[in-house]
Amino acid sequence: MQIALVGIGKIALDQHVPALKASSDWTLAATVSRHGTVEGVPSFTGIEDMLAAHPDVRAVSLCLPPVPRFAAAQAVLRAGRHLMLEKPPGATLSEVHALQDMARASGVTIFATWHSRMALGVAAAKAWLAERPVRSGRITWREDVRKWHPGQDWIFEAGGMGVFDPGINALSILTEILPAPVHLTGAELDVPANRQAPIAARMSLSRGIEVDLDFRQEGPQTWDIELQTDAGTLSLRMGGNVLEIAGQPVEGQDDIMQEYPALYTRMAQLVRDGASDADLSPMVLVADAFTLGRRNVVEPFEF
Amino acid sequence: MQIALVGIGKIALDQHVPALKASSDWTLAATVSRHGTVEGVPSFTGIEDMLAAHPDVRAVSLCLPPVPRFAAAQAVLRAGRHLMLEKPPGATLSEVHALQDMARASGVTIFATWHSRMALGVAAAKAWLAERPVRSGRITWREDVRKWHPGQDWIFEAGGMGVFDPGINALSILTEILPAPVHLTGAELDVPANRQAPIAARMSLSRGIEVDLDFRQEGPQTWDIELQTDAGTLSLRMGGNVLEIAGQPVEGQDDIMQEYPALYTRMAQLVRDGASDADLSPMVLVADAFTLGRRNVVEPFEF
Repeated sequence: MQIALVGIGKIALDQHVPALKASSDWTLAATVSRHGTVEGVPSFTGIEDMLAAHPDVRAVSLCLPPVPRFAAAQAVLRAGRHLMLEKPPGATLSEVHALQDMARASGVTIFATWHSRMALGVAAAKAWLAERPVRSGRITWREDVRKWHPGQDWIFEAGGMGVFDPGINALSILTEILPAPVHLTGAELDVPANRQAPIAARMSLSRGIEVDLDFRQEGPQTWDIELQTDAGTLSLRMGGNVLEIAGQPVEGQDDIMQEYPALYTRMAQLVRDGASDADLSPMVLVADAFTLGRRNVVEPFEF
Repeated sequence: MQIALVGIGKIALDQHVPALKASSDWTLAATVSRHGTVEGVPSFTGIEDMLAAHPDVRAVSLCLPPVPRFAAAQAVLRAGRHLMLEKPPGATLSEVHALQDMARASGVTIFATWHSRMALGVAAAKAWLAERPVRSGRITWREDVRKWHPGQDWIFEAGGMGVFDPGINALSILTEILPAPVHLTGAELDVPANRQAPIAARMSLSRGIEVDLDFRQEGPQTWDIELQTDAGTLSLRMGGNVLEIAGQPVEGQDDIMQEYPALYTRMAQLVRDGASDADLSPMVLVADAFTLGRRNVVEPFEF
């Protein structure tokens, strides 16, 4: 099946393009980007031009920041093509609800991806937690924004989500592996004096789960989830890729695909099944943190 | 049927108690409040004590601010009683989702009320708009916080929602009368330098609808919704109570109940039907405004 990729930036070149090149389901037939291109693939600067020129493109994958994503998503759905969205699926919950309604009305697939849910340890963690209630937990998601988002001012603008851009990956894993929903009970957001979105945040969730997000970590990076149960502590390290239970590494995950190849395999399956997958629970927790969270002004940030 | 009222403050005494006294469905059997009481009705300071002492109380109506509401709501549902919530139904979306899950599991009714949806002109406005697409619109919701929430500091705390506390009434009417969902495309929040929640806000919604909320209006108060259609302008004034279409007043609403009596009648019907009603769309728009909105610091506010 032919697919087009919109937004040829770092995440597209690092992850989406290699995943599509290796895929037996998909052929990358076109790209849309103001500046970026992929060698050997027809490129466009406007999505409407691409859709008109490539009627055989059945699906479109969007790798755009959340704020400009909606207009592109609407264009894809209006043209009757299947839609795949990078996380988070939009700048607001209400616009994603609108996209879900459009996809339903057009009879096409919408897949709101959470790439971290495809990390190597997630499925095994979910299976282990299914019968073991979580008593408390701690998420530590600390990375260096200058390394992962160099010069990307949009991430600190209103709607850019700041440290929740990586933090929502942790929340996407948490909401996947827990057998029942969690809710937010409190939050604090540290917002640089010269920015709109937080550079660090703490969230308190039900079940005694504390979340510590920080964009200012230099040196070693930390993406850890630790959950205490009566049968011992489950630890997911390295963004969900390394699983330890009661201090012992859990092996046997060699047959699992990497995150982005797994996402495109799932997208192909959804299209074949005429199904959709758009779980907004990680985004609801972030919206709740913005609504309920206490804001602290912290020192100005420049890249 | 016996009902208990939790949170005996201004809104309870002004609206809930008279509505219950006039109701043929309900008897006010108990109250819970730190300070407030209702003459002739047994009063408690703790909700668990009331639930234990009054096993015949079938339903509990909560008139608490959003932040303390959740623990009380959980207690009601755990005790297997039906639950009625003042707007907004919680401090966060995720906690209301949790309450919905609990109510479903317990087989009891949850009614997340939006009292403004019961205003006198709303049903007729909805009927008229069903076949007439909205081309643009304007909501103006400007009131004096010192008059309506005297000394209520909680409203400007994190989670208190600030000007969205009245503004969500406008959004509850809008989402009721439009035949299809709207979504947020932009927002600005004016936050006093000494407070956490906005004192004024502008929202841009799809369909060209602009929303202007302000808590600093002295003199005449304004609660107006104007929607332009090809068949003329629909205006709902006085918080949804006065309807004009193309400049002409629409009559014939004498048989409609006032807002709070109508809510309690609906609650009784939901309990009899074993049904629930918890539409969160007004709250989603507010959470989206907090997530996407640009914040401006404005002058400090004191009551």
